[in-house]
Amino acid sequence: MQNFNYSIPTKVFFGKDQINVLGGEIKKYGSRVLITYGGGNIKKNGIYDKVVEILKANHIEYWELGGIEPNPEIGKVREGVQICKDNNIDFVLAVGGGSTIDSAKIISVAYYYEGDPWDILTREAPIKNALPIGVVLTMAATGSEMNSGAVISNKELKQKLPIGHPFMAPKFSILDPSYTYTVPKNQTAAGVADIMSHSFESYFSPDKGAYLQDRLAESILKTCIKYGKIAIDEPENYEARANIMWAASLALNGILSYGKNTASSVHGIAQYVSAYYNTTHGVALAILTPVWMEYVLEDKTVEKFVEYGVNVWGISPDKDKFAIAQEAIDKTKEYFTSLGLPSTLGEVGIGEENLENMARDAIENKGGVIGNFKPLYYEDVLEIYRRAI
Amino acid sequence: MQNFNYSIPTKVFFGKDQINVLGGEIKKYGSRVLITYGGGNIKKNGIYDKVVEILKANHIEYWELGGIEPNPEIGKVREGVQICKDNNIDFVLAVGGGSTIDSAKIISVAYYYEGDPWDILTREAPIKNALPIGVVLTMAATGSEMNSGAVISNKELKQKLPIGHPFMAPKFSILDPSYTYTVPKNQTAAGVADIMSHSFESYFSPDKGAYLQDRLAESILKTCIKYGKIAIDEPENYEARANIMWAASLALNGILSYGKNTASSVHGIAQYVSAYYNTTHGVALAILTPVWMEYVLEDKTVEKFVEYGVNVWGISPDKDKFAIAQEAIDKTKEYFTSLGLPSTLGEVGIGEENLENMARDAIENKGGVIGNFKPLYYEDVLEIYRRAI
Repeated sequence: MQNFNYSIPTKVFFGKDQINVLGGEIKKYGSRVLITYGGGNIKKNGIYDKVVEILKANHIEYWELGGIEPNPEIGKVREGVQICKDNNIDFVLAVGGGSTIDSAKIISVAYYYEGDPWDILTREAPIKNALPIGVVLTMAATGSEMNSGAVISNKELKQKLPIGHPFMAPKFSILDPSYTYTVPKNQTAAGVADIMSHSFESYFSPDKGAYLQDRLAESILKTCIKYGKIAIDEPENYEARANIMWAASLALNGILSYGKNTASSVHGIAQYVSAYYNTTHGVALAILTPVWMEYVLEDKTVEKFVEYGVNVWGISPDKDKFAIAQEAIDKTKEYFTSLGLPSTLGEVGIGEENLENMARDAIENKGGVIGNFKPLYYEDVLEIYRRAI
Repeated sequence: MQNFNYSIPTKVFFGKDQINVLGGEIKKYGSRVLITYGGGNIKKNGIYDKVVEILKANHIEYWELGGIEPNPEIGKVREGVQICKDNNIDFVLAVGGGSTIDSAKIISVAYYYEGDPWDILTREAPIKNALPIGVVLTMAATGSEMNSGAVISNKELKQKLPIGHPFMAPKFSILDPSYTYTVPKNQTAAGVADIMSHSFESYFSPDKGAYLQDRLAESILKTCIKYGKIAIDEPENYEARANIMWAASLALNGILSYGKNTASSVHGIAQYVSAYYNTTHGVALAILTPVWMEYVLEDKTVEKFVEYGVNVWGISPDKDKFAIAQEAIDKTKEYFTSLGLPSTLGEVGIGEENLENMARDAIENKGGVIGNFKPLYYEDVLEIYRRAI
């Protein structure tokens, strides 16, 4: 097991009607709030009204930044920072999923920077301070509600950059599983793929130790497998939504990766599918994960796939190693398909046209190599894209 | 899944040589430190010298409270509070295992109370404030290093009372697995039994949901089963010590019980074995756990034992339900025995003499009923004690 420093300071209020803590929690930090949200779904399902009602009842002033889209853009962040600066905002409340939360995080740190917020993503500008952030989660996927990372896109530059800083950890996150009842099937499916991918990114590492962490990752994976389909077929199944929601938070709050030498593989590759085609993050992951698995399966890695197949999919350990590995990969692919997710880039309208540029950008973004389970170079990434078509 | 409020604010510095953060971490909070420790083992293995060297190098003044014993006594707490009050202590550093940490926690809150510290355990005195606490962990067992609970005994009153409060969560805990290399075999074994028992207490609950939490509990159990014996046979096996150490922290930091309706069963029964006979906590748990399991096994509970047997012990799900359950219980018992732990109260010198009083005290302490997986009353507890003889 590798050394690690554990710190997960975000308080989580999980369950039905936990929204009722919102006023009291915000008032610990501020009274002039910027609310960030997405495409307006929260206005249809009543969550917006509930939040506003609570803010008013608590005499908390608020401003709004709506219209944040999936693969959130730096433009919206710039807009949010301006609102904060113009109005002496002292608290940022994200009401939504990963895009909304990630935007809130960068707004909160860019507030303390005079230049262009994009400089924070490129690391030209160091993070020195942040407005406190709170979250009302409406989608289970990225885990952003319980960690200190964010990913922001820049369409002009065709870049999508991640950054993390302890200041960016939300002070609190309200996780009411019933708030995800209205998430459409395709987005629920993409979310489940994202959660599973986060688990895979920790699980498939070169570490031989950290046995406990791998069992925890299997717990998340088994939970996704058990409840993902149920959440899609029965959108108001509370237990399914609750298990998926909590799995999302645990999959990327650090608990799976602490003590392991992890380096994302599929995320690094999928990122440039979304950067070029705006493909839903989880969809890109679902397509590329089984392809990546088959590509990296070899003598050196087969044991880990056996572990995965036996422990997660219940495949008999008595079979041939490579047969178990292949069966596990097939089951992974079939599972994504059963959720209604596409299994090729072609299905989402992507052809050969940009693959070389995407591979080049993906590799450059990671300083020349992606992942460490099997380190991937330009030719590898390009080949994975090609096989995924 | 039940509603829950998650908060685990303790920072954990895990791994080799993490002791080097000690000076900087303490100085965030104070400069006049009370060090609490146990029977002096830390003076033999060099940990005490290292701590003192760091405090001196950082110009941190320190006072000492040594000699804290297993099943820590309120007398030592009183002594510690007096040292704090006499010397304007502003930080309490526990260097040891659960007893040392629990004592530090109660000292830290009793410092702000004028009366007898025992009043805090009986809840006659409310907790209003606490000195900040840090931990250098030297034994993997209770999980106290990452939660806000403590258990203190009062021999005079033959009582052992638990209490929890957010103020009592350590600010930081330093977990260097190599610090547990010198823990004797019997104490390592008792620690593993304690970790497993904490997992069982969450796992065996009346909840039908919280699927994810139960998979997490199985992760801890599988880790104990894989590495417990190795840690005993090869005391300097870093990977074994690391996995057991981290398992101990996760088993009782809340991650297994958040979202579940849990109520300890075996802890409530074992507590009065220790209160009457000063039996090592983990030893009492190891003896009583399989007896409790057999006692509560019935139509209503058998499915949970099947889940346990299949998922943790790899028993074939095709067998008869009760056969699987019994095999799982047998394997649990055999595993404890393989660690060198006793399997009867007789082996640790306990006879029939106090069983009725113990059962009465155990039940009274819990307000008339112990646990909720199968609620236990006086006659049940007495019968479990009897079967354990």
